[in-house]
Amino acid sequence: MKPEWLEQPAKPVSQNQYDAAIIRQNQLTKPQGSLGELENIAIRLASLQDCSKPSLDQLHIVIFAGDHGIATQGVSLYPQAVTVEMVRNFSRGGAAISVLARHLEATLEVVDTGCIIDPGPLDGVLSQRIGAGTTSFHQAPAMTQPQLSEAMAIGFSAAARSAQSKTRLFIGGEMGIGNTTSATAIACALLKEPPEKLVGPGTGLDSDGIKQKTEIIKASLLKHSDAENDPWQVLQCFGGFEIAALVGSYIAAAQQGIAILVDGFICSVAALAATRINPGIKPWLFFAHASAEPGHTIVMNALHAKPLIDFGMRLGEGSGAAVVVPLLRSAVALHNEMATFSEANVSEAKE
Amino acid sequence: MKPEWLEQPAKPVSQNQYDAAIIRQNQLTKPQGSLGELENIAIRLASLQDCSKPSLDQLHIVIFAGDHGIATQGVSLYPQAVTVEMVRNFSRGGAAISVLARHLEATLEVVDTGCIIDPGPLDGVLSQRIGAGTTSFHQAPAMTQPQLSEAMAIGFSAAARSAQSKTRLFIGGEMGIGNTTSATAIACALLKEPPEKLVGPGTGLDSDGIKQKTEIIKASLLKHSDAENDPWQVLQCFGGFEIAALVGSYIAAAQQGIAILVDGFICSVAALAATRINPGIKPWLFFAHASAEPGHTIVMNALHAKPLIDFGMRLGEGSGAAVVVPLLRSAVALHNEMATFSEANVSEAKE
Repeated sequence: MKPEWLEQPAKPVSQNQYDAAIIRQNQLTKPQGSLGELENIAIRLASLQDCSKPSLDQLHIVIFAGDHGIATQGVSLYPQAVTVEMVRNFSRGGAAISVLARHLEATLEVVDTGCIIDPGPLDGVLSQRIGAGTTSFHQAPAMTQPQLSEAMAIGFSAAARSAQSKTRLFIGGEMGIGNTTSATAIACALLKEPPEKLVGPGTGLDSDGIKQKTEIIKASLLKHSDAENDPWQVLQCFGGFEIAALVGSYIAAAQQGIAILVDGFICSVAALAATRINPGIKPWLFFAHASAEPGHTIVMNALHAKPLIDFGMRLGEGSGAAVVVPLLRSAVALHNEMATFSEANVSEAKE
Repeated sequence: MKPEWLEQPAKPVSQNQYDAAIIRQNQLTKPQGSLGELENIAIRLASLQDCSKPSLDQLHIVIFAGDHGIATQGVSLYPQAVTVEMVRNFSRGGAAISVLARHLEATLEVVDTGCIIDPGPLDGVLSQRIGAGTTSFHQAPAMTQPQLSEAMAIGFSAAARSAQSKTRLFIGGEMGIGNTTSATAIACALLKEPPEKLVGPGTGLDSDGIKQKTEIIKASLLKHSDAENDPWQVLQCFGGFEIAALVGSYIAAAQQGIAILVDGFICSVAALAATRINPGIKPWLFFAHASAEPGHTIVMNALHAKPLIDFGMRLGEGSGAAVVVPLLRSAVALHNEMATFSEANVSEAKE
């Protein structure tokens, strides 16, 4: 039932450009290694983009929005209506990601994968509704297999649009009241970790709320325990439409040869599921920031990943990734534009 | 002997704007606190700039360059000539900070406080030479008291030029072969810590080099042990001209009401000395990044400061601060431009 494209290989990475970028970094007018993480970023981007001077000018941000049946179990501080209210806010340019995308001169797309209310036509919003939210996974699998395939295909199309517009960096974001509950259940199932270790406050639950959320996830994991060894089934049981779309978009972006900047907790769980389906996409992923959500560290460890900054953010919408873009752009500018020792007539280190 | 202006109070910070900024942050369309560190940055900048919508458009970067007598003791991998060679590289736009300043649309000034070689007139370089480098503090105090006053006055003038050009954020940078040795000695003297705890590789010393550097600092601290209780005397004994100029510039910028973004190890030691001379400047300081130099953590702890990012950078030139500027600009853009719950008709959290 799993669509065949999901297992197609990611675009190969250039070892030649990787080696050449290291040589160039060591010729720039600075002590070797003194730009730290910025050097690693530039070297990776050169090898991913298969060129000596990588670029991050063209940037595509896609926010997938969708509602969650599980939200009716009182796992969030906010009513479900907020998902579609925020879709309208994205469209009008008032949300955090709207502000950040403007300043980055990035294209910003919002995809309604299935909010409980259909917002109707909105500027900058694509309607690709799979349904009016998922089923509560406390009762039954969150979606059917055809719905999961459809969500993945929505992600595939987003990556294809990115490739068509010559995007050099893809950012996926998400909006969906209840989706830290969905993401936590997915991570617990994939990593075989107990919910107590991963559950966090999401948008701001107190300790009673966290306890209730933990119990709901625990009972749901038991109910769907036969899904645990298959990431495809895990996504079907616990996923949101928007999370499955993220998974599809990450896999397709890596296949198209577009570097990916992963946002916080929910996006990292989608990245984990994506690498479980197609491990070869791993080199294409950059991890932007350490989310304040406690499960994020566990997901990062499972991915052997280290996020670039730790600002205690927990907003979603791709906002943490957007904030990190200028750091990647600085890395690229330094790599491309600094003078070498010989160009600048600067003495090198004594042997 | 200490110039009187050093102890003039820093500009007061607005408590009203601080409180108003917190209220605004809590009205923006996001869960409270979900922008983490970005919220703190925006709130602090509103209170420092005494306005409801802070700005970081106008940015002034000043690199103070100077040579160190101590460099003749083999404490660096690079020959002293590199200081002036890099001044020429700054002038021609080939250094890391040149690239970053261009992309930030910041004004970049280089001040020659006393390289061993006079580079003569160069574009974008102010000649304010105190001497041809400092005296080696292994033998005698690095400078005279009048030289120290002059270095501080150079920093004062730089801050005054910043104020005149309506700068909203001041970045000081430094260039001087041997200056991690000078900065480490200053930090050891001010913090009464043994050099073993602070000495690091600087531009890239191996373990033998680090051992030699440690011994030189140890002997020098013994030689000048009577200076330890007075930051003014500590700077005179161990300072570089460029480090003393940084100290003066930080104090004067805070007096002029300009927020300061402190770069890595050497700048943080200058900030430490500045707060020892004038503790009231502390609220004006932001700390950009955790330097790879091991002493930096100790200096940060002494300042009760937490740097914003940790990229393992150790270049100097103000480069780490420049890399962090876009994070501060994002904080400001979000604070100023996001919609509030009522503007966007988004439901707030349930009580």
